[in-house]
Amino acid sequence: MERVPVLKIGDILLVSIQIDMSDQTAVTLQEDLAERIVATGAHGVIIDITALDIVDSFVGRMLSTIASISKVLDAETVVVGMRPAVAITLVELGLSLNGIRTALNVERGMELIAATREDDLGVDEAEGAESGSAATSA
Amino acid sequence: MERVPVLKIGDILLVSIQIDMSDQTAVTLQEDLAERIVATGAHGVIIDITALDIVDSFVGRMLSTIASISKVLDAETVVVGMRPAVAITLVELGLSLNGIRTALNVERGMELIAATREDDLGVDEAEGAESGSAATSA
Repeated sequence: MERVPVLKIGDILLVSIQIDMSDQTAVTLQEDLAERIVATGAHGVIIDITALDIVDSFVGRMLSTIASISKVLDAETVVVGMRPAVAITLVELGLSLNGIRTALNVERGMELIAATREDDLGVDEAEGAESGSAATSA
Repeated sequence: MERVPVLKIGDILLVSIQIDMSDQTAVTLQEDLAERIVATGAHGVIIDITALDIVDSFVGRMLSTIASISKVLDAETVVVGMRPAVAITLVELGLSLNGIRTALNVERGMELIAATREDDLGVDEAEGAESGSAATSA
């Protein structure tokens, strides 16, 4: 029961955190995620924190570490499902969740990852052509 | 921390059970799911039990109840992520998970729901025409 499952949906890995994270479960989750990203070639990681009443500095650091590891492995991390009270507490505590992108829910998180992915891939082709024509018309 | 989050992905609701279910959490989950199915018009419910070491008669009954409620609300329930040891224990205990469909993982569960949905919708149109032509050629 002390392992957070990693679910694969398309090229996205979904993690729903529902248990109190200890040092050990946090490390295990980071390792599991890194392994799954490499094994599946996933381009995005969505971490759902709907079930969390509190995001303290420990959880915040864990999320940042996961985002950094995923980034190195070419996967975008989005944290979704943050409760209003959690957001307020985060700001009051001065925790900024460095390097972490957030979205309202899983679907918007998926859209965000897809959009980022398109931007990254399309910048040389469609986006490049578009900005070229924009420059011409300007 | 005693509420299992229900995540919406397209027209499917995803539930990942990671905590020990009590009577209260089971009832709350059933109510949450029923409300979300009605609110979102979801056509499928996927219950991930990757994190469960044991599926006893209580959990089995809960899954059956969820499947029955969803069925009445026109949503298909698929249980995914069952561990090999859990499957073996289920059979040894003689628990049959009545009315519950299973799939290996979330993606296959989604495919199963989509296929069932197509069958249900298509039986009057494409399927009907097909069986008609088959009858003609026979």
